[in-house]
Amino acid sequence: MKAGGFILASKRLIGIDLGGTTTKFAFIDEDGNILTKWSIPTDISDSGSQIVPNMIKSIADQMRREDYNTNDFIGIGMGTPGAVDREKGTVVGAFNLGWDQVQQVGPTITEGLGLPIAIDNDANSAALGEYWKGAGDKADDVVFVTLGTGVGGGVVTNGKLVHGINNGAGEIGHICVQKNGFLCTCGKRGCLEQYASATGVVKVAKSLAKRFTGKSRIKELIDGHEDLTSKMVFFLADNGDILANQIVNEVCSYLGLALSHVGNTLNPENIIIGGGVSNAGNTLLQPTTRYFQENAFKSVRDSTKLKLAQLGNDAGVIGAASLALKFKNDNAL
Amino acid sequence: MKAGGFILASKRLIGIDLGGTTTKFAFIDEDGNILTKWSIPTDISDSGSQIVPNMIKSIADQMRREDYNTNDFIGIGMGTPGAVDREKGTVVGAFNLGWDQVQQVGPTITEGLGLPIAIDNDANSAALGEYWKGAGDKADDVVFVTLGTGVGGGVVTNGKLVHGINNGAGEIGHICVQKNGFLCTCGKRGCLEQYASATGVVKVAKSLAKRFTGKSRIKELIDGHEDLTSKMVFFLADNGDILANQIVNEVCSYLGLALSHVGNTLNPENIIIGGGVSNAGNTLLQPTTRYFQENAFKSVRDSTKLKLAQLGNDAGVIGAASLALKFKNDNAL
Repeated sequence: MKAGGFILASKRLIGIDLGGTTTKFAFIDEDGNILTKWSIPTDISDSGSQIVPNMIKSIADQMRREDYNTNDFIGIGMGTPGAVDREKGTVVGAFNLGWDQVQQVGPTITEGLGLPIAIDNDANSAALGEYWKGAGDKADDVVFVTLGTGVGGGVVTNGKLVHGINNGAGEIGHICVQKNGFLCTCGKRGCLEQYASATGVVKVAKSLAKRFTGKSRIKELIDGHEDLTSKMVFFLADNGDILANQIVNEVCSYLGLALSHVGNTLNPENIIIGGGVSNAGNTLLQPTTRYFQENAFKSVRDSTKLKLAQLGNDAGVIGAASLALKFKNDNAL
Repeated sequence: MKAGGFILASKRLIGIDLGGTTTKFAFIDEDGNILTKWSIPTDISDSGSQIVPNMIKSIADQMRREDYNTNDFIGIGMGTPGAVDREKGTVVGAFNLGWDQVQQVGPTITEGLGLPIAIDNDANSAALGEYWKGAGDKADDVVFVTLGTGVGGGVVTNGKLVHGINNGAGEIGHICVQKNGFLCTCGKRGCLEQYASATGVVKVAKSLAKRFTGKSRIKELIDGHEDLTSKMVFFLADNGDILANQIVNEVCSYLGLALSHVGNTLNPENIIIGGGVSNAGNTLLQPTTRYFQENAFKSVRDSTKLKLAQLGNDAGVIGAASLALKFKNDNAL
């Protein structure tokens, strides 16, 4: 862009990924490339009252360090736990942050930094990140499912995030995969989250170990009341433990089934699996794909691809930053 | 709109709803109101070679009868069975029409009538109709499921139809609702279509009748090898037949479960149930809503409404006509 004979560099975006332990930040260019990234611990003391002031200070400090001012930025995008009012920029019910009352996150940050801000929930932000710069390949229709402590999701159709009438779109973790199955924290039974989250995998392990009669390191750990993690289950499956393989198979059968429901509804080009459990890689992806294909309608089976997420921990800040692209025209020179 | 001192009336749309038995037509105004509607039998003889010529003739005749010429219309929209190439305007694999080879439907109609045409599949057209003028209330996110001979569906998000990468979006009839359940025509087992279509209801009836030990008119009909229809099942359920009520309950449990998967994925404002089976009204809707609520995540359960379709047989022509709205600007005076 030229103005008065000078060539002006394109502006930057600021992405914030607010988590219960760490708050991640990045300065990102308009093409979604990370220019700088950093993080600070999330201070959840005093009902999380320091979270927003700490964010503002951290961004202001970083801008000063890099000799930037507000004119160098288009705006801020942020992903957060809890329920977001996207119009007002408020957040409520983010209990892991201590935010049980409505928080004026957006207005406070805009006042503090002089930049417009767009806020969405963390699963949607990560979905946008993978859609924009990761495994989503900017396909028109992409679904993102994240297997972490819980199971979350984000849905992009016709190139746009779907929120639903009550921000309930993407609640893939609460698709029922087993009638009268494990009791979920949401009050229902048999939700995917109880089988395919990090804690879900351990639940499946304990359930199957009871009936297992052979020799297995997993069974030894459980019988000895030692700690068991989903990571160990996948590691032992890779190393030939029979019970571990049965557990992985069961987890993937539920995940593949739930994703087939999503596939039969939307036939997205890509369904992207992210979150900590997805670090298991092909040990998770292959059997899940098999069960997905077994349950997907022909035209879906032949076209919708299951993929592992590519951006890891950066998906959140990149996707959050993409929310701020909407301010581009408002701020045009 | 004024031009040269005359007030020009707004233009019309033509909607075509092509079915295996009947082809329905309508002239529709830009607000979606039907001005004229009529239908002709669908001639599927000779591999359906007369279908398109018959359509052209029928529309041309009607235009002449009403003293219209092409300038009075924006364009044509059409819903059809089979697989549609929306860009080329071709249709293939509509076996109930005898169309097993690629048909140049769009180009032929445009050549014959001098009007642009947009084609989509019949379930999507009906979904658009209900979205535009029926139970959808033009909400941003609406899902339509049609319970007829089979079970089809259409998905609208952010106000736009979702097709998916291979036109497989809305294949709600092939969501698996019962592991190792009834064999479906698609080759999979336990598809919703095998439980909630008109033939599916009868299948459920026969299956439950085997185990039923009490007195039931349905059991008498089945044991006597007499004809049984889904309509009779719902009628008898309304009249206190115990087995009929068990059948309806089972059908609705599967339908409610499948719709909860759709709800947890998209949280649409409305999920609209249409097709012949939906003529059962509240006898179908109430238990389905109960099972939907039992399986939907809290934020979805509290916001997504299940509704009966409102347009009946007109949904197809109205929705098809809406496809032609995209020609409005091209054809502007």
